[in-house]
Amino acid sequence: MIIVLRPEATEEELQHLIDVITDAGLQAHVSKGTERTIVGAIGDESKIQLIPFTAIPGVENCIPILKPYKLASREFHRERSRIKIGDIEIGGNEIIVAAGPCSVEPNDTLLQTARAIKAAGAKMLRGGAFKPRTSPYDFPGLGEEGLMMLSDARMETGLAVVTEVMDTRDVEMVYRYADAFQIGARNAQNFNLLREVGKFDKPVFLKRGMSTTIKEFLMAAEYVMSQGNKEVIMVERGIRTFETATRNTLDISAVPVLHHETHLPVFVDPSHATGNFRYITELSLASVACGADGLLIEVHPNPEKAMSDGAQTLKFAKFEMLMDKIKPVAAAVGRKV
Amino acid sequence: MIIVLRPEATEEELQHLIDVITDAGLQAHVSKGTERTIVGAIGDESKIQLIPFTAIPGVENCIPILKPYKLASREFHRERSRIKIGDIEIGGNEIIVAAGPCSVEPNDTLLQTARAIKAAGAKMLRGGAFKPRTSPYDFPGLGEEGLMMLSDARMETGLAVVTEVMDTRDVEMVYRYADAFQIGARNAQNFNLLREVGKFDKPVFLKRGMSTTIKEFLMAAEYVMSQGNKEVIMVERGIRTFETATRNTLDISAVPVLHHETHLPVFVDPSHATGNFRYITELSLASVACGADGLLIEVHPNPEKAMSDGAQTLKFAKFEMLMDKIKPVAAAVGRKV
Amino acid sequence: MIIVLRPEATEEELQHLIDVITDAGLQAHVSKGTERTIVGAIGDESKIQLIPFTAIPGVENCIPILKPYKLASREFHRERSRIKIGDIEIGGNEIIVAAGPCSVEPNDTLLQTARAIKAAGAKMLRGGAFKPRTSPYDFPGLGEEGLMMLSDARMETGLAVVTEVMDTRDVEMVYRYADAFQIGARNAQNFNLLREVGKFDKPVFLKRGMSTTIKEFLMAAEYVMSQGNKEVIMVERGIRTFETATRNTLDISAVPVLHHETHLPVFVDPSHATGNFRYITELSLASVACGADGLLIEVHPNPEKAMSDGAQTLKFAKFEMLMDKIKPVAAAVGRKV
Amino acid sequence: MIIVLRPEATEEELQHLIDVITDAGLQAHVSKGTERTIVGAIGDESKIQLIPFTAIPGVENCIPILKPYKLASREFHRERSRIKIGDIEIGGNEIIVAAGPCSVEPNDTLLQTARAIKAAGAKMLRGGAFKPRTSPYDFPGLGEEGLMMLSDARMETGLAVVTEVMDTRDVEMVYRYADAFQIGARNAQNFNLLREVGKFDKPVFLKRGMSTTIKEFLMAAEYVMSQGNKEVIMVERGIRTFETATRNTLDISAVPVLHHETHLPVFVDPSHATGNFRYITELSLASVACGADGLLIEVHPNPEKAMSDGAQTLKFAKFEMLMDKIKPVAAAVGRKV
Repeated sequence: MIIVLRPEATEEELQHLIDVITDAGLQAHVSKGTERTIVGAIGDESKIQLIPFTAIPGVENCIPILKPYKLASREFHRERSRIKIGDIEIGGNEIIVAAGPCSVEPNDTLLQTARAIKAAGAKMLRGGAFKPRTSPYDFPGLGEEGLMMLSDARMETGLAVVTEVMDTRDVEMVYRYADAFQIGARNAQNFNLLREVGKFDKPVFLKRGMSTTIKEFLMAAEYVMSQGNKEVIMVERGIRTFETATRNTLDISAVPVLHHETHLPVFVDPSHATGNFRYITELSLASVACGADGLLIEVHPNPEKAMSDGAQTLKFAKFEMLMDKIKPVAAAVGRKV
Repeated sequence: MIIVLRPEATEEELQHLIDVITDAGLQAHVSKGTERTIVGAIGDESKIQLIPFTAIPGVENCIPILKPYKLASREFHRERSRIKIGDIEIGGNEIIVAAGPCSVEPNDTLLQTARAIKAAGAKMLRGGAFKPRTSPYDFPGLGEEGLMMLSDARMETGLAVVTEVMDTRDVEMVYRYADAFQIGARNAQNFNLLREVGKFDKPVFLKRGMSTTIKEFLMAAEYVMSQGNKEVIMVERGIRTFETATRNTLDISAVPVLHHETHLPVFVDPSHATGNFRYITELSLASVACGADGLLIEVHPNPEKAMSDGAQTLKFAKFEMLMDKIKPVAAAVGRKV
Repeated sequence: MIIVLRPEATEEELQHLIDVITDAGLQAHVSKGTERTIVGAIGDESKIQLIPFTAIPGVENCIPILKPYKLASREFHRERSRIKIGDIEIGGNEIIVAAGPCSVEPNDTLLQTARAIKAAGAKMLRGGAFKPRTSPYDFPGLGEEGLMMLSDARMETGLAVVTEVMDTRDVEMVYRYADAFQIGARNAQNFNLLREVGKFDKPVFLKRGMSTTIKEFLMAAEYVMSQGNKEVIMVERGIRTFETATRNTLDISAVPVLHHETHLPVFVDPSHATGNFRYITELSLASVACGADGLLIEVHPNPEKAMSDGAQTLKFAKFEMLMDKIKPVAAAVGRKV
Repeated sequence: MIIVLRPEATEEELQHLIDVITDAGLQAHVSKGTERTIVGAIGDESKIQLIPFTAIPGVENCIPILKPYKLASREFHRERSRIKIGDIEIGGNEIIVAAGPCSVEPNDTLLQTARAIKAAGAKMLRGGAFKPRTSPYDFPGLGEEGLMMLSDARMETGLAVVTEVMDTRDVEMVYRYADAFQIGARNAQNFNLLREVGKFDKPVFLKRGMSTTIKEFLMAAEYVMSQGNKEVIMVERGIRTFETATRNTLDISAVPVLHHETHLPVFVDPSHATGNFRYITELSLASVACGADGLLIEVHPNPEKAMSDGAQTLKFAKFEMLMDKIKPVAAAVGRKV
């Protein structure tokens, strides 16, 4: 931690600051420059990260040096993590595609879709039984009935199932039916929910919140991991910006930045990032080219009848074309699909 | 709902769109302009708001006309709502100040603070027993013990208590101890939690999320209200922007915009908006001047020892000065504190 | 400047970094912590601010300590600056209101408006002869003819005139007719234009750009001041965020933050900040309450016929009411209008 | 244009609105719904786009239907434009890479770099003789001397030269030396400069502003084109968001969105988008994969000695690797480099 003093700080204020640092068990290194005095706190930064230095008289600013995440950090775990779900390996050479309808619906679309995406090369089935909807009057999902339908679709097709959990009270139920949890963007900082899935032994697809910085996103992963569950997959799904041509702005740089900062695998969800079926294929190609370990894609037999997110959903034929197009790009960067 | 067709849309595509609208029980008004055909869907818009029109062939864009919120809307409830907590009235002529430490701490700071803020004119005590912390290694709050301490402070001082609830499983417990719930910014779109507090009969201080639009913020209120609880207080607490001089950017315009759109009272939390004790007073004055119905302010006897948010916390003397300064501004706009 | 090394940095890399710092004439203070080595560069930071430290092998990050602005900084000029335009003093106890139509139009609206705003208490007339329009097909302003009309209106009413200059080639012409330059938001980082107005001896109303940080905004003022013209008035006019309920988001915190960082006066332009006449009054009150030294308000006899920005323009009667309402708020914070 | 009335709008207000529309030469179609009356203005929307409908009594909102750009729109020019610079074709099958140092420096780095990038496969040389610098104390570029050095480097290597113009007064000089103009991000809405380069017959590389929406970006192209110069290349270079892990946020979706909206070629500048040499290669691959027609890359023999932007600049060896890596990705999407 570097603490910068105000130009008019007094000697008493400096001494008080030094006392605060040494009382916490760290050493204080003072550098008196021409215009500012700077104090470095040397030692275990975690002991002082809660001290509100800027509330101390004479302090202008304080700058943490160490990263606040450990378990998620690549600094302490150089090798990239690989996460197994049955015979699927996430984070290895193969790019894993998870596809399916936005919501599990009370009809046979899930099963139809599961068959179609499997034929096209997807390895995982995604679909929501619990749906976060902006309006209380929209379809909230089928709940446990939807989970059963996902489980049935897995039985028939062999696809692994990932589905969202929104409530700490539902974590155990979702655990029983699914192969992996999904934490949605709106719950990216629902810390109790993060802790809860951290107590179970199934992988967590953790979506970035709409206004979550990459650092906060890594802290969210740290929450899950701090409870014991080390199998977290980071999912970039677009952030909120001033641009309205797409529903969100896909932060494609997050893929290489996350690979630099963490050993955890990184997926991209181009469907939610753009909200527009027209751009999904190009953004999938971009994601694969810059190192994404997998994709989450919304697919439905008839998007105009989908119970949610129809505007960003691909038909079967378009999804097949997408799968065909990403293969050569994956090969071009030394991966396979 | 207005649906705009693409220039190359065919007659079949137009007819299919008309069928979709009429099948849903609305009328379709077609206007053929020189460059675009536009179709208006006339009737109960709620019946079609889930149809993904942009997924329908030939459609370029669709524009909802009606607002998606009803219970929160001022259109259906012209009079401003007043919410009673004991003998406090929120949304009336008096500006209500809620103050207190960020976290309830395992010492006597809460009680000290409660006495000090009451003496200075605050009517409510705020303080967190459950704390959303970005890091899993930070102080998470005292839980039920903190709730008991809040309840004790109320007994002694007569201040009404508002405190955050973060987990659906804790709603009932918080209900037992507090006079009002607070939903924090990170849970602004935790829809299950919104529904849960909507089932109880105590007021809800609903904080705006860091990336929540005003429309989504009103939909969050609608979630609570749709379960029966009509006592929602909207709290503007800063949004996330590119500016880093303050922790968030206080969207002061939200005060008049919300008053225009909804009958619900509007509070401002300048402490979280700026993250810097230095600017709290000026932003409190601005909030009162433009019509805020109340303020949430962080106060602690010794901010540099506060267990969270010390940098944005006022000392007792500074809080007293703030209270003194807002009085004439309140009077200038025909209100009192 | 603080330079943080990567954990795997070698001794050679550290030595090379020290050489770079000492070659530039500064001293290098090395602190070896448990997880990171940190190097402080002590001395005149301006000598090294152009060195791309993060391009040097072994460096993870570099953190400037000193503020990059000097002339604009309150550190080097504690007293708030007061700027005189005729008998008007900006930055003193009186809050100065500049009002007028968005564009100078080829009719008598300017003169009508000048008379009306003067009667209501405004001290300055604003109006654009050169208009930055998003579309090349929109009204671009009357140019020199508009400047003459502004000059005529000043002659008749005695109001001081401020008007925008958009092109380095027009600076001298605007100087001849106006009492003060305005630099618009879209030119906030048009550095050649900033330099050009810096060579003249009339005040500059410098608008913040839509995505300009406060630090960059101060650097823009520094550009003007570095050429000799020290009379800069900072104008907060809203920044671009995800929120669409208002045209921009008024960053009201910029008022106290700027007053903390700079000695220059601070104005607010609520008209451009919101783009909606309905909220101008409340935001004007908020601005005055938190310390703004003046306001820029768009006024027109018949906004629905205004040639630009009608939606955010006040009629005469509404402007008079605004002036009446800000008086008691100004008094409440010890100022007058 | 669709105009939505307020629920309480009177018949007189409706009639007045109809008069405004018909006076402008359009037809008014009135649809009375259950909760709102909506008026469509049918005819040439450009005649009414300047009318501030929301300033008309009884109007709640107005929604333009037609796009405000024509010359740039793909609607009126279905075929993608190809722009020739000597024997280079931009917008065709070949992906064009322009590379070079951020600034032209007073030494032989430009020539060294030109030779190295040509050997690696670049077709154009980029480098700034006029530099927009945030600080007035930073290196502002060499001006005409820099232009001469660029011209010399072209003579020797045969690379086409693109360089920034910042001031209307310099446009003719830059025209004499360069093969193409560059308009920088900070001048993306410097409308006079856009008009000026629109009068010349050399291509314009138009960078998106940090807070420019895609619609505004297209309007900026329209400005250039409205003066006669149809050769505009759109350059996505990152937008300003809350994320600080990269200097800006590369809006990769802009590539497919722009290709959908306009016939103009689209380049990506990953150097300015991220500000970090570490991520340039991955983002270049992503850009090529999703359809970019070219790249702008900063290259310098010794970035740590570069006079600007060293942190985001590639060394020769790293640039060669980048060129090697983009070839197979280009081939995978049916293009060549």
